[in-house]
Formats: sequence, C-alpha cells, structure tokens
Amino acid sequence: MSASNSYAPDRVEMFALRGIPLVRPGDDLAELIGNACASNDLPLEDNDVIVVAQKIVSKSEGRVVRLSEVTPSAEAIERARETNKDPALVQLILDESNEVIRQHHGIIIVEHRLGYVMANAGIDQSNADSGQVILLPEDSDATAAHLADTLHATCGARVGVIVSDSIGRAWRNGTVGQTLGVAGIQPLLDLRDTMDLFDRRMQVTEVAIADEIAAAASALMGQGDEAKPVVVVRGFRAMPDENASVRALLRSRELDMFR
Amino acid sequence: MSASNSYAPDRVEMFALRGIPLVRPGDDLAELIGNACASNDLPLEDNDVIVVAQKIVSKSEGRVVRLSEVTPSAEAIERARETNKDPALVQLILDESNEVIRQHHGIIIVEHRLGYVMANAGIDQSNADSGQVILLPEDSDATAAHLADTLHATCGARVGVIVSDSIGRAWRNGTVGQTLGVAGIQPLLDLRDTMDLFDRRMQVTEVAIADEIAAAASALMGQGDEAKPVVVVRGFRAMPDENASVRALLRSRELDMFR
Repeated sequence: MSASNSYAPDRVEMFALRGIPLVRPGDDLAELIGNACASNDLPLEDNDVIVVAQKIVSKSEGRVVRLSEVTPSAEAIERARETNKDPALVQLILDESNEVIRQHHGIIIVEHRLGYVMANAGIDQSNADSGQVILLPEDSDATAAHLADTLHATCGARVGVIVSDSIGRAWRNGTVGQTLGVAGIQPLLDLRDTMDLFDRRMQVTEVAIADEIAAAASALMGQGDEAKPVVVVRGFRAMPDENASVRALLRSRELDMFR
Repeated sequence: MSASNSYAPDRVEMFALRGIPLVRPGDDLAELIGNACASNDLPLEDNDVIVVAQKIVSKSEGRVVRLSEVTPSAEAIERARETNKDPALVQLILDESNEVIRQHHGIIIVEHRLGYVMANAGIDQSNADSGQVILLPEDSDATAAHLADTLHATCGARVGVIVSDSIGRAWRNGTVGQTLGVAGIQPLLDLRDTMDLFDRRMQVTEVAIADEIAAAASALMGQGDEAKPVVVVRGFRAMPDENASVRALLRSRELDMFR
C-alpha cells in the first residue's frame, strides 16, 4: 500500500513526560509510563506515538555489564590497541556486532547484531555506574510491541511506540535521534505511486517517518539527563502497521554503497 | 560555550502553514511567510524556529534549469552511461559538486559545492515542469539569515530559520529532513563539558539539534505537495547564534570515514 501526503498533519504536539524514576532491572516500563502520563495529566490518546529512550529499555532489561567481568579475546586486544579503547569494551562491541565496518582512533563502526550500522555497537558509557556499560536492548522491536500492547491494555489507547537512540551519522557532525525498534506504525512510508503537482512520479519515494519522529522526540529528551526518557508525540496520522519492524529502515547490504 | 540540557523543552508545538502559494522566481519568501502566519492566525513569537523547504527557496531564486539547454561534457556523458541517467542532468550534478564520492545505477553521491554529501547534488526532478529540474539554493545559510532578519523587521519576532531538504542517508532507507542552511540558532550543541547523572563526562558530546528540528518539521511538510513548505516550530529553547552556519554540521573530510 502506498501512502499519500495525508500522513502529514498540520499540527503536532510533543510532551516530555516528567517524573519517570531511575529505571532498575526488572522495572515495568509500561507501568512507569502509565504512571507518568497520569501524574503529568496527559492521558494517552489513540494514534499518539510514544518515543522511549533505549537507555531505560536497556536498564529495565538488565543490559548492564561490568567491564571488569569481561575477558577480551586476542582480536579485541588487537583492535583495542589500534583504536586506543578499553579491550573489555571492544570485546563487548564485537560480541554485539555482526561485523566491523570501519575503525579509527577511539571509534569502531559496526553492524550491530540487529542490523544497525553505528559506532561502538551503541554501547553507552555515560549514565552508568563507574566501570559499567549499557548494551542496546535485546530486541527493540519486541520491546516496542510489548509496550504498545500493554499500554493499550492499561491505558485504553492504541499508540505507536518507538525505541530510540542518539546515533552518529556519516558525513555530518552530531547525533540525531533514530529508531531502534518500532511497533504499531509504519516506519517507512512508500510514496512510489504518488504523483507530484505536475503529475510526475515523486522523486523522493520513501520517507523514514519513524526516524523523523525519533529525531523530533530526541530534541525534547536531551542527553544524559534521565529525567525525560519518554516523549509523547501527538498529531501524526501515522499509518497503522501490525507488523512494524525497524528492519524496514535498514538498507540491505547489497544496496549499500558505504560498507 | 557548552550547552546544558536546558535546551531540551518539556513541550513543543509544530504548525504547518497553510496557504503558501506556488512560488515563482523573485517572490519574497519573508512576505509569503508573514502573510501565511497572518492568515493562519499564528503570529510569530521570539524563539520560534521557521523551517522552510529548500524547494521554495530554490524557486524564489530562479534555480530552475531546462535540461535541453544543458550541454553535457565528455565526463558527464560517460558517467550518465555508467549510471543510466540523463547526461544533461549528470552535467548539472557535476556543476553543483566538489567531487563525486560514489556512483551506482541511478545514483551519484557527491559532495555538493556547499559541503553536503548527498545523492545527485540534491537536484530535484519532481514538482518542476516537465524537462526542468530544480537546483539547491545558491547559499542556504545566507537565505536563512535574510529570512530571519526580514521576519524580525516585519513580524517583530526574533526567530531561527532552517532551510531543509529531504535527504537520503548511508545505511538506512528513506529520507529524513536535514539542514541545508541555518540562521539565528546554534545548529550543533556542544555538550562536552556536561556531566551525566554519575558525574562522568557525557559520551554523546554533540547533538545536531538543527537536523532534529528539520526532521521533525519534515514530517509535517509531506512530500510533493507544495502547499506546506513552511513549518513553525515553537517551544525549543534553541541557543541563539548570530553566526550560525550549516558548516558546523558538516564533518570535515579528514574526520570522515565514509568518503
């Protein structure tokens, strides 16, 4: 099915939820989000998109590793030397990745096991206790789907969910919010059957709408401050998609010119 | 100066302006935007960020070229054969670029003369009369600065301005809104002196806030429909920057691993 421009609304509001507590392993994120919506006097509505920072997903899943408990392999030690990084951290990066794409002083660009191309497998050393690091969630699509289902059951609203992270890019400085996992909404809009004003086929044929929403929400979350890891985005007429997956946003290796 | 998380607001609203007419060469965009704000009953406020689609900037500047009037060079003819593209279009891509970075069937990735790495030098074949194409603006930073100054003079509000385009990315499918030019706000936030919750230095040190805002606005503009080429973003506490330039967002060649 192709999308038309009806997806583009005239007005959108975004709200960062206040009062999400520091997340511990085993915490129920849907409950924390539901509670925060109540305390923020912001009842969820159908078609809201809830953007959740990966960090709290990872923490709720206990994806925190103590570097002193990691035994680096020979490859990790060698790459650590080449990149001037901690060998234990490099081991975790390798464990979390399908392949190394580039490496340079201080940075290793990999294809994460879930397909994202990113620096250091998305492993975060900030906002963890000293000596610990935070891995990306086990399966962000599954987490997003679970959150969407649970929020529907508990709050009564059919919402989309995006698990997001701040990710660096080729060619441009600075991170932007991008999608790690998605549920309930079509992440990539296909405009290939849409005609422009002069009845020509559109040149831009696919829009990464989930990444645009993740970027928007990221600007409200800020960095490092865990007080605002959840943003409610209201007004997008996102296309429902029961089988949404971040995989739609990941370019296949054969079509990728920058591996 | 380093930014703190005070840049991240709790609430943001975005409005797509209705009623911007089809733009012709020589049209005064500030006047069109001011008129649309009036007819949308949306007076501009200090610290609003106005995101303007490059297409109307290009059209107002007369950056429309008839392919039949372009004489392709030998290089353009050869690259056109290799990529299965129109030789006249390839000539324009080369004219608009500093260098070709990759080429493949149907696509030529270049460094645009203004430094952006993008497909086909951003030349748009949709929404132009048949046989014509639209080049990127002459100097999007200058246009953004002129719009910010003019809107201040005419509307009384000190706004930031971003000239945006929908741009493809390495590794990910679909376009996202990105910044071509910026005025009035700091496009790249430097968080290097910011500590996280555990008093460690932040790992994410730079945030491409202008690109996050451009992505957000792009989701309201839609594609191909020129009725919504201007979005007013309200609520970001963007850092004022009298010398803002998209150049802050462009990774230097020496630090770029994907050339």
